[in-house]
Amino acid sequence: MQDERNNDINETAITGVTGPITDWLDGHTILVGLLANPIRHSVSPTMHNNAFAKLGLNGLYLCFEVEGDRLEGAVKAIRMLGMRGANVSMPNKKAIIPYLDKLDKTAEMCGAVNTVVNDHGVLTGYTTDGIGWVNSLKEDGQEVAGKVITLAGAGGAAIPIAVSSALAGAAEIRIFNIHDRNWEPAKEKVALINQETDCRCSLNAMENKEAFKKSIAESDIYCDATGVGMPPLDDLSLVEDPSWLHEDMVVSDTVYQPRETKLMKIAKKAGVKHIYNGLGMVVGQGAASFKLWTGKEMPVDYISKIVDEA
Amino acid sequence: MQDERNNDINETAITGVTGPITDWLDGHTILVGLLANPIRHSVSPTMHNNAFAKLGLNGLYLCFEVEGDRLEGAVKAIRMLGMRGANVSMPNKKAIIPYLDKLDKTAEMCGAVNTVVNDHGVLTGYTTDGIGWVNSLKEDGQEVAGKVITLAGAGGAAIPIAVSSALAGAAEIRIFNIHDRNWEPAKEKVALINQETDCRCSLNAMENKEAFKKSIAESDIYCDATGVGMPPLDDLSLVEDPSWLHEDMVVSDTVYQPRETKLMKIAKKAGVKHIYNGLGMVVGQGAASFKLWTGKEMPVDYISKIVDEA
Repeated sequence: MQDERNNDINETAITGVTGPITDWLDGHTILVGLLANPIRHSVSPTMHNNAFAKLGLNGLYLCFEVEGDRLEGAVKAIRMLGMRGANVSMPNKKAIIPYLDKLDKTAEMCGAVNTVVNDHGVLTGYTTDGIGWVNSLKEDGQEVAGKVITLAGAGGAAIPIAVSSALAGAAEIRIFNIHDRNWEPAKEKVALINQETDCRCSLNAMENKEAFKKSIAESDIYCDATGVGMPPLDDLSLVEDPSWLHEDMVVSDTVYQPRETKLMKIAKKAGVKHIYNGLGMVVGQGAASFKLWTGKEMPVDYISKIVDEA
Repeated sequence: MQDERNNDINETAITGVTGPITDWLDGHTILVGLLANPIRHSVSPTMHNNAFAKLGLNGLYLCFEVEGDRLEGAVKAIRMLGMRGANVSMPNKKAIIPYLDKLDKTAEMCGAVNTVVNDHGVLTGYTTDGIGWVNSLKEDGQEVAGKVITLAGAGGAAIPIAVSSALAGAAEIRIFNIHDRNWEPAKEKVALINQETDCRCSLNAMENKEAFKKSIAESDIYCDATGVGMPPLDDLSLVEDPSWLHEDMVVSDTVYQPRETKLMKIAKKAGVKHIYNGLGMVVGQGAASFKLWTGKEMPVDYISKIVDEA
């Protein structure tokens, strides 16, 4: 099969290496991969490899451009090469499920996988995006347990946030979305959350702007998981002005490019004390996956700084 | 399938890394693998990864414990993951051939592969062990072209040395071996060398000690590619005393553990000026493979020092 991917080994300007590397990247090094496309600009390898180096762990994380016909073979590669596991991203998060042996509860509820762990040939799929978001708030003293959350969006970022927040004890989650292709699948997820957890969860029409605005005003946490705020939509925010928000709430945007989104600027004007971009979620999901592969805590502050500068 | 291999990511004491690593081990890093078993103590990853780091090349070399049933799947992994290629070692050097698309002339003559290059989905097998040996002598000013070589052994190290020396213009190669399982296959290889090159090649009975001794006395180069000299045979040498050797010849041992073998000690006593252990061949084959994957020259002096200390 002709392979149109580029696997040239190109020149680069390496920093952080001063001399011969020994006792790492040697015969004992165990591989973790990212199976996605595109992947060349992913921050995940920089995150995990610097965590391995910092903690002195003999693991290594690399990206593989994989989608479509190649996905099944790439999962077999995890088995054949004895890899420790993988991350999975677009467009493979749902497509990978038939090739795995088991799913954990969160992945099963989300119907999507972002992490695979290979335990002696048994591949288990996990979804750490949502718990990554929950943990990134917790790191800064913000718990979701008992809280009312308004969540904009019903796609690949929103559903794991809803599922993990519900499993972490959120009192109520109000999902707002337009009637796009995510609407019907989200209805099922909402029913599942109501059935499987003590959280009250609802799916609401984003078209009803008054209801959306009222829900935010009643919430402890507002999270925008739509991607609005990212170029070319970086001049937009679903929250139209500071009057929609209140000081004591948490405002979270899953976007991190730019670091301060339009929503975050509006929140700042509203005097909101706890405002977060999406970097915490990125590092949080990475840290949760890292723990699944290594059993160790990622040094989150050290890694966040590297990822922020990457 | 139950996987008895250990893929735990273990603690290690890393040297050579001082700060965050950027622009390497990132989304652009291209993987090369070693498919063999055992592999944990291989020096190849240390060799290649330090060469990548030194030259500023965005590649990475890792070892995968692969043999038997897993070999075909591991070769598919090269394709599926878009790896740049692989090294192949025991017990896969012959077994891998049916899974490749093409062989270069040396690999075809040797009937063995130690290097695979993935060019846009086309996998070509090479054998760089022999040219690695030839080049390691050349680096020190010793040419095989026009020379008479006595070569002890007819196994996995000896045949590539014979083939590559013949292709590099050696005048005559006299292989000496006992009548073990390598004898019959070696007969075919010798016929092939005589047919395909201008080199006169012969297979001779090592049991005839007088003929062996006489051949060495008439040779420009004596190479022991049997593994004698390595523990538990580290007190042995096929050359029994210094009188078998002469000052102006080259004496090469493919063993590098210990760094000075019994043969090398005997050669020193004989006043031989050019004595080599197997490290040069190890680095030489690595450098030849590195060039196939990257198009770049491995910094051989820098890497030899690291490998020597590893």
